[in-house]
Amino acid sequence: MSKVRADITMSLDGYVAGPDPDLEQPLGAGGEELHEWALASQSWRESHGREGGERNADSDLIAEGVAATGAVVMGRRMFSGGSGPWEPDPRARGWWGDDPPFHAPVFVLTHHQREPLPMEGGTTFHFVTDGIESAIGQARAAAGEKDVLVAGGGTVIQQALAAGLVDELQVHVAPKFLGGGAPLFDGMAADVGLEITRVVDSPTVTHLRYRVIKN
Amino acid sequence: MSKVRADITMSLDGYVAGPDPDLEQPLGAGGEELHEWALASQSWRESHGREGGERNADSDLIAEGVAATGAVVMGRRMFSGGSGPWEPDPRARGWWGDDPPFHAPVFVLTHHQREPLPMEGGTTFHFVTDGIESAIGQARAAAGEKDVLVAGGGTVIQQALAAGLVDELQVHVAPKFLGGGAPLFDGMAADVGLEITRVVDSPTVTHLRYRVIKN
Repeated sequence: MSKVRADITMSLDGYVAGPDPDLEQPLGAGGEELHEWALASQSWRESHGREGGERNADSDLIAEGVAATGAVVMGRRMFSGGSGPWEPDPRARGWWGDDPPFHAPVFVLTHHQREPLPMEGGTTFHFVTDGIESAIGQARAAAGEKDVLVAGGGTVIQQALAAGLVDELQVHVAPKFLGGGAPLFDGMAADVGLEITRVVDSPTVTHLRYRVIKN
Repeated sequence: MSKVRADITMSLDGYVAGPDPDLEQPLGAGGEELHEWALASQSWRESHGREGGERNADSDLIAEGVAATGAVVMGRRMFSGGSGPWEPDPRARGWWGDDPPFHAPVFVLTHHQREPLPMEGGTTFHFVTDGIESAIGQARAAAGEKDVLVAGGGTVIQQALAAGLVDELQVHVAPKFLGGGAPLFDGMAADVGLEITRVVDSPTVTHLRYRVIKN
């Protein structure tokens, strides 16, 4: 069955990016370190066109997610680091070069209309200006039998949870304090219920998976 | 070797108590539910003089903590829910009745001096007015070969971590959003390092244990 999955890495103190992000350091101070576990894995490297990497529980878990995903939803800031009109945005083609790692349709939430942007390797960026419900609806239609991945950032995942649109939440808890930055859960509705469905333990990160109970 | 352990239950959105705590609901809205996993366990019930409860991984983990603990450090609000002078505090003998579940010396951080308060069952409350370092130092001396448990609340655990006084941090992540309340980590120093040492997975809570790396 096709599901909507939210999946993101969080520091133990609850941030998905550190303080003071900019174009040089889009994840803020210390934010890149959250993702060391992924960058070290064979399957992350393969999806990004790189060789090497470790074959371990983290790598298996990433491969499982890649195989299940038919379409992706993300926020404008995750896509380009920018905001406002597209023309002056230096990353208006995204962070990932000509062949982004998604190999699937990606629906980017933005306030600024734009034509779809086809890239190499099967990724096409679609720009959605009418909100999270529309973005997930379009992604569902595009994903077919596969899952929709809500990839971030934190506010987009919160919006999707609050709107009752998420079936499964996976949080990768990195053993790190960021001390500030972009919180994953900031004023979450307490009536969104969670049930633990899987915990995968590795030396560098803890993968917590929940079924989301919609009230 | 004697260690200083911080140990607390946190919601997935990072709170140790919910919004609007009062004397009827000292853990705020929804805060009691964080501790359902403990209250259901045989070893928690036994330490609180109650019968029954489940013998499971959660219960074993609590029993392990109880056996290792020689002294406890906690904040005034965790002790009584109050603040300010002791005389008008309706819970000035603590929350736990005549035979508190600690069965060991407990060092309570407060701004208001007070004589030690011996209770039944081996618990004596000592009141410490000169800060976290003094409280942990006195608890270390009292604990002998056993561990010092820093039991909460969030601000006391933060102070102890920031002061480089904690060897081991255990966070029990409850599958729940509180949406507000008392955060566990609120402006943590990003230079306090963590290393995952153990993850215990149960159906109702995930126990994350870290070695604290003092920088």
